[in-house]
Amino acid sequence: MTTDVVILAAGQGSRMKSSLPKVLHPLAGKPMVSHVVAAAKAMDDVRLHVVVGHGAERVEEALAAEQVTFALQREQKGTGHAVAQTLDQLGDGKVLILYGDVPLIQPETLKALMAKVDDQHLGLLTVTVDNPSGYGRIVRDSNNRVTAIVEQKDASDAQKTIRECNTGILATTAASLKTWLPALSSDNAQGEYYLTDIIAMAASEGIAIETAEPASEHEVQGVNDRLQLAGLERIFQKGQADELMRNGASLADPSRIDVRGSLSIGQDVKIDVGCIFEGDVVLEDGVEVGPYTLISNSRIGAGTVIAAHSVIEQAQVNGKAAIGPFARLRPGTVLEHGSRVGNFVETKNAYVGEGSKINHLSYVGDATLGENVNVGAGTITCNYDGVNKFRTEIGDNAFIGSNSALVAPASIGKGATVAAGSTITERVSDDALAIARGRQVEKNDWQRPSRK
Amino acid sequence: MTTDVVILAAGQGSRMKSSLPKVLHPLAGKPMVSHVVAAAKAMDDVRLHVVVGHGAERVEEALAAEQVTFALQREQKGTGHAVAQTLDQLGDGKVLILYGDVPLIQPETLKALMAKVDDQHLGLLTVTVDNPSGYGRIVRDSNNRVTAIVEQKDASDAQKTIRECNTGILATTAASLKTWLPALSSDNAQGEYYLTDIIAMAASEGIAIETAEPASEHEVQGVNDRLQLAGLERIFQKGQADELMRNGASLADPSRIDVRGSLSIGQDVKIDVGCIFEGDVVLEDGVEVGPYTLISNSRIGAGTVIAAHSVIEQAQVNGKAAIGPFARLRPGTVLEHGSRVGNFVETKNAYVGEGSKINHLSYVGDATLGENVNVGAGTITCNYDGVNKFRTEIGDNAFIGSNSALVAPASIGKGATVAAGSTITERVSDDALAIARGRQVEKNDWQRPSRK
Amino acid sequence: MTTDVVILAAGQGSRMKSSLPKVLHPLAGKPMVSHVVAAAKAMDDVRLHVVVGHGAERVEEALAAEQVTFALQREQKGTGHAVAQTLDQLGDGKVLILYGDVPLIQPETLKALMAKVDDQHLGLLTVTVDNPSGYGRIVRDSNNRVTAIVEQKDASDAQKTIRECNTGILATTAASLKTWLPALSSDNAQGEYYLTDIIAMAASEGIAIETAEPASEHEVQGVNDRLQLAGLERIFQKGQADELMRNGASLADPSRIDVRGSLSIGQDVKIDVGCIFEGDVVLEDGVEVGPYTLISNSRIGAGTVIAAHSVIEQAQVNGKAAIGPFARLRPGTVLEHGSRVGNFVETKNAYVGEGSKINHLSYVGDATLGENVNVGAGTITCNYDGVNKFRTEIGDNAFIGSNSALVAPASIGKGATVAAGSTITERVSDDALAIARGRQVEKNDWQRPSRK
Repeated sequence: MTTDVVILAAGQGSRMKSSLPKVLHPLAGKPMVSHVVAAAKAMDDVRLHVVVGHGAERVEEALAAEQVTFALQREQKGTGHAVAQTLDQLGDGKVLILYGDVPLIQPETLKALMAKVDDQHLGLLTVTVDNPSGYGRIVRDSNNRVTAIVEQKDASDAQKTIRECNTGILATTAASLKTWLPALSSDNAQGEYYLTDIIAMAASEGIAIETAEPASEHEVQGVNDRLQLAGLERIFQKGQADELMRNGASLADPSRIDVRGSLSIGQDVKIDVGCIFEGDVVLEDGVEVGPYTLISNSRIGAGTVIAAHSVIEQAQVNGKAAIGPFARLRPGTVLEHGSRVGNFVETKNAYVGEGSKINHLSYVGDATLGENVNVGAGTITCNYDGVNKFRTEIGDNAFIGSNSALVAPASIGKGATVAAGSTITERVSDDALAIARGRQVEKNDWQRPSRK
Repeated sequence: MTTDVVILAAGQGSRMKSSLPKVLHPLAGKPMVSHVVAAAKAMDDVRLHVVVGHGAERVEEALAAEQVTFALQREQKGTGHAVAQTLDQLGDGKVLILYGDVPLIQPETLKALMAKVDDQHLGLLTVTVDNPSGYGRIVRDSNNRVTAIVEQKDASDAQKTIRECNTGILATTAASLKTWLPALSSDNAQGEYYLTDIIAMAASEGIAIETAEPASEHEVQGVNDRLQLAGLERIFQKGQADELMRNGASLADPSRIDVRGSLSIGQDVKIDVGCIFEGDVVLEDGVEVGPYTLISNSRIGAGTVIAAHSVIEQAQVNGKAAIGPFARLRPGTVLEHGSRVGNFVETKNAYVGEGSKINHLSYVGDATLGENVNVGAGTITCNYDGVNKFRTEIGDNAFIGSNSALVAPASIGKGATVAAGSTITERVSDDALAIARGRQVEKNDWQRPSRK
Repeated sequence: MTTDVVILAAGQGSRMKSSLPKVLHPLAGKPMVSHVVAAAKAMDDVRLHVVVGHGAERVEEALAAEQVTFALQREQKGTGHAVAQTLDQLGDGKVLILYGDVPLIQPETLKALMAKVDDQHLGLLTVTVDNPSGYGRIVRDSNNRVTAIVEQKDASDAQKTIRECNTGILATTAASLKTWLPALSSDNAQGEYYLTDIIAMAASEGIAIETAEPASEHEVQGVNDRLQLAGLERIFQKGQADELMRNGASLADPSRIDVRGSLSIGQDVKIDVGCIFEGDVVLEDGVEVGPYTLISNSRIGAGTVIAAHSVIEQAQVNGKAAIGPFARLRPGTVLEHGSRVGNFVETKNAYVGEGSKINHLSYVGDATLGENVNVGAGTITCNYDGVNKFRTEIGDNAFIGSNSALVAPASIGKGATVAAGSTITERVSDDALAIARGRQVEKNDWQRPSRK
């Protein structure tokens, strides 16, 4: 039977001091609530309900591509009240309550918890911590059965020594929730309806409280401010770094890599310090990524070496290329085997054929280069006339002299040579030499400028 | 009554292995002693005295802009001797003794200490540490009154277990100091006059020793070598990072940001890994700073996005601009709303009007660009003739073709177009097209060079 | 008498998930086994034997320049079997057994161990750890004499509390090894010959087991996967950073510097965050290295300031120069006193004379610049005709206008001026002005392009 998963995502998060709803703050490049949605979806046969409130529209927009149902909590009247907004959406099966600001919860933990839940057993996720101060303590009887959750302020000295704490994550049946939630009281200091109060209801009905614990405490850590978010970001990044290394990547420093998305690696990939990967990135066998390089949404072919300080976005590198340092590959760049893009070079919508080289200080945009083309230093493809963009075509084995400007639409024939310093405005024939520059004259009576 | 604050700054710091006097070694971009001066000045009604010795001139020069009085300690004969050099500068009120190599002391701590001081009470700053080995221990009687400071070498086994230690920071009255300091003895192994010895004098006179503790141990940590300095630098930077996050900044990694000066932030500022801020920097609402970006003494307007690896110095960005990656904004750069400076572009003394773009591989120096100017890739303003610098003026909506050189003084009219590859040496009229390049010729009998 | 050192380097290291033999994985830029070789060589009068197996050829190739003898272990039948492969290479003295995947062992530790070894005393390196689980425990009798090494699986509860563990590193005499190794049995779960079993043999012969401990646990940590390798890399880098600081370098952040080779420093060298040094690098007095700078195999002269994001390889800087930000100095670059290479500038095989400046967006390759040359922004030396490289010579005090192309072989005379935007193909005389560009014409009936 389908499990309903309710994700609470209505809070403002005032301590974030942000105009962005709290659950949309990104962790590893993705909103916190999206991590929770992904963890929930990794379970079998689930239906997701997201309770929105503060910034409801933005949260709904952020999750538009996910198959989730939204429920609006107009006023923030507590966790019990929040869950209650989903009551008429729930089916007849089990219900799991998660939190949009507890982003690192893992599917394995949820599965273990759900396995304990049925009509007669409520599942409660607890966590044993070194310093439980501030948390609700899990009180057990002599048979080790959970009898109550006692809040810090209500705890006896003996209870304060209990290190097993409530995480807020729990699961029960929809039927039970439909009984219990309407019965919650807001007769407390905050005037809120607390979901936790259903534990007592369950106990009084003779329903056993079964517990599970996460593999790691950070799975259940909530985010209330940016320090906590930054803390979880580092834990998450460390976990990703360790996983990359277990899969055979060499990381120069696991604490100085950021992966914000999906990074797939072949064998013997080396990643130097300070690199950042965003979106979907593939590094094939033997790729070496130099320090302080940024790569987003790109595939880097086997054996490619990327030198320091390169920035690569939506590029495709087919086979063994050499890139950087200080290379900027913009969207639409395709580099073929053995090609090279060197320092202070920008490419965009550019196909660079096998063995072709753009080694120094060039802009190559909206261009197609054949094989073994040599683009000299300081070459500019003039692809823009102020309103339109045009393409430049350069044939195999062409040689573009340094400091040339190729005014698009431009066509440079195979084996053609463009003389250094030329501004090319007309087609260049195959194997021809094109020159377009002034003749050199010398003035020997020249007086150097003097200070004015 | 005015409090005299004496800052000891005469030591050489031989373990620093430096030609720079120890107290001038920077922490977060500012000499250590300047941090101490700032903490002292944050108290009410103070007069500062700095005892200089090694490198006295350099220390005095470094503090020239501060309102402090200097006292020269010609020979390094101990802390008591150092303070004694200021005796004839002291007034009739309280005196606080600080150290130029204990840079992280906080004003709140000093205020709490000073509140305990009067004619009958000497104030001593103590600190309780986990490992007190090496420190002077604070010995108290059964009434918890301080009776002595016992040095490590003189401590009994019982005393060695005491974890409350002397920090060296203390306060008393000028009158007392004038009595006690001349009475100090140098009859000890080092032959020095120890300020600490006045504690015993106070006690023997029936003056109570009142203590205060800093909020954190690092406030009283001294710097004797570069490892300790680097340690405090990290603590200081971590504190600043936490404060930025509490104020609502998103930091990708709080352990990879360096702020050496003052960084003011608006709402929802994002700072990626590895950024460095120097001097006075303002980041307005919604500014995003890409990784490995350096910004010094600049104001970045709301909504501006700075991409990776940019270096910005003494620039002013008015509103939503796009900068980088690999942009270099040098002093005197002003970017208006919606303008853009892209990769491998250097600007200096350049005003870039609303919506104007310098996207690729250009040098724009000593120039004024109107609105919606498009500067093509590879454009150079030739502002220097070897001795003089001249300005370039470019009118609204002008289009500068790629790979152009604008020889200053240059004036490009509104709506004018400069053809790609041109070297412009004369005024260009409004709406005109200027071309200054060679005509293209083709040689079809051209033989490629052969290997020599 | 010469000591034989046997280094075991035959393992595959399947958990590295690499095509590279485990001992060749680099730590601080050097294969792990090379660190072990270096530690062994730092002892007096040693002869090295390296046992190779998996990837034997590559390991032998990597150590080709070292004076070591190789022994091939064709099958991996245990540590005892590995050492046995060297038996006929051993002399008559002591033998020390090391491991190619235990890279941080220190010479001091080895010397202390060897001092305990003779005919009647076997030396065993042990380490006392907080969590000994998994290690072989050192069992001692009431006289504190080592009687056995008990493996985890065979240990009694009492023995499991022993925190002194076997490191595998041991030393004895060649004579003993020649007796014991052939007597080893493979009658165990793995069917391997364990070197450790000689301990029992020694004990049964009445030979005393003498122990030594390393200064730090990481000296004896082995590497089985990339996480452990990355962990040791960080420990090693931290050690180097601390040593640099003790020697008087200012490091902005000791956890963000990577030295992969030898870094020699003068007095008052400053290194900002994120720098990487490879090969042999010398930074003379007062050199300042900006953040995220990479330097390999270069000497940087006193007083030179390198700004952020520079990449320097096989360059020589003679005296006080200014480099960067975003400078790329490639092999063969020589900068004289007072010279300057600025942003987005690449140099290669270039001699830059005293006081000469290449400040912006230039490529200077295969060139010799005299003194006080000014190279304008956007200047390109066209050193390559597609097959040959030619040199450019620029005389003292020459002024190269911006956006110029100098077609090599090129010769610019002393005091000569090249007009901005020129493509220079012929020799320029001393003090002359050379112009090689098109004449400016203006078209006032010009129609801007319209959208197509």
